[in-house]
Amino acid sequence: MKTIELNASVTASNDADADSIRIEMKKKGTLLVNLMSSPGSGKTTLLSRIIKDLKDEKKIGVMEADIASDVDAQRVEDAGAKSIQAHTDGMCHMDAGMTRRAMEAMGTDNLDLVFLENVGNLICPAEFDTGAGKNIMILSIPEGDDKPLKYPLMFEKSDALVITKMDTKDYFDFDLDKCIERVKRLNKDIEIFPVSAKSGEGMDDLEDWLLSQVALWKE
Amino acid sequence: MKTIELNASVTASNDADADSIRIEMKKKGTLLVNLMSSPGSGKTTLLSRIIKDLKDEKKIGVMEADIASDVDAQRVEDAGAKSIQAHTDGMCHMDAGMTRRAMEAMGTDNLDLVFLENVGNLICPAEFDTGAGKNIMILSIPEGDDKPLKYPLMFEKSDALVITKMDTKDYFDFDLDKCIERVKRLNKDIEIFPVSAKSGEGMDDLEDWLLSQVALWKE
Repeated sequence: MKTIELNASVTASNDADADSIRIEMKKKGTLLVNLMSSPGSGKTTLLSRIIKDLKDEKKIGVMEADIASDVDAQRVEDAGAKSIQAHTDGMCHMDAGMTRRAMEAMGTDNLDLVFLENVGNLICPAEFDTGAGKNIMILSIPEGDDKPLKYPLMFEKSDALVITKMDTKDYFDFDLDKCIERVKRLNKDIEIFPVSAKSGEGMDDLEDWLLSQVALWKE
Repeated sequence: MKTIELNASVTASNDADADSIRIEMKKKGTLLVNLMSSPGSGKTTLLSRIIKDLKDEKKIGVMEADIASDVDAQRVEDAGAKSIQAHTDGMCHMDAGMTRRAMEAMGTDNLDLVFLENVGNLICPAEFDTGAGKNIMILSIPEGDDKPLKYPLMFEKSDALVITKMDTKDYFDFDLDKCIERVKRLNKDIEIFPVSAKSGEGMDDLEDWLLSQVALWKE
């Protein structure tokens, strides 16, 4: 497992950089998925489960972006993915240039699916296009069903919402129907997957959707 | 309950603005406390409990900073505090100038204790001095004991750490001793309060500490 130190990209247009990443990845047939959430929402646990379930079918890479530490990259590598740890030099999000440098340092040849585990933050990552083909956000049950009201942009920007830690729903006042209604009001086309990476609940639907997105990307 | 729309302050020095807020608040004998955490850590639930417990002894104000919505300000007002909802125009943190404008809009005369509930974000708020006399961060059990490794700056900048949702600790793999050891390695002087606002566990210690800080501030 490698570690790369990144700092903010000095570039005229993050959007142009992001578009060129998408074009290149489409040519290679590698789907880049940008995973965004709060700290502690269970991104790495979810990813480890997906990797274990899909690694015999698809070649998977994971870029773990964090301000510090390399605990996450080690976990996904143990689960069976190619991985790299990216340190963001204090930055609260990944931009397209940083994403490109992390992909080049890891190597994405022959990979079907590359996850970017963005910095844990419900705000800033939503403002920067990373060049991903799909954006997925994660909301965990303990965070509460009011998050769409407070952090609307991330819900608007995401292609799919994964609601994690469903196994803990009896211990928290989380109204799933109300949450889904709030999310759909912001983004009527978003796909929503309530799951528990621990019990396996809902994982099949999420993984089927991911596989269908990989297939569409290779067309 | 009022709402104020804020945008980033245009100022030469945020640190100088923050220092002048601290001097003014010290003269008034009003302790400004900056509360920082991830989204969904239970800041508003904790605050509502503190307000109910202390409102007969101390006059309390709360400034709720959020990108959108006013659900939090309504909750703390119902609990018995003077309150204002501040919208940050998409900004991921509060700076000193924004804090000053929110305080002026709410009015802080005769208040003993004013809480600023900063935007839910473990990264950016730690980089901007708000002018608070004390900085408190909240980490909830479901977020995990590895957060000090991943977001060190906020733990370094805080005078106290409140570990919330202790009532849920049996459902999560959270090693309290390991977490405290990691935090103390970053900040040996930090005060740590494990609490449950739901069951009341640990609230007396936290509230006694808050009252002692208010008394010290008025000296």
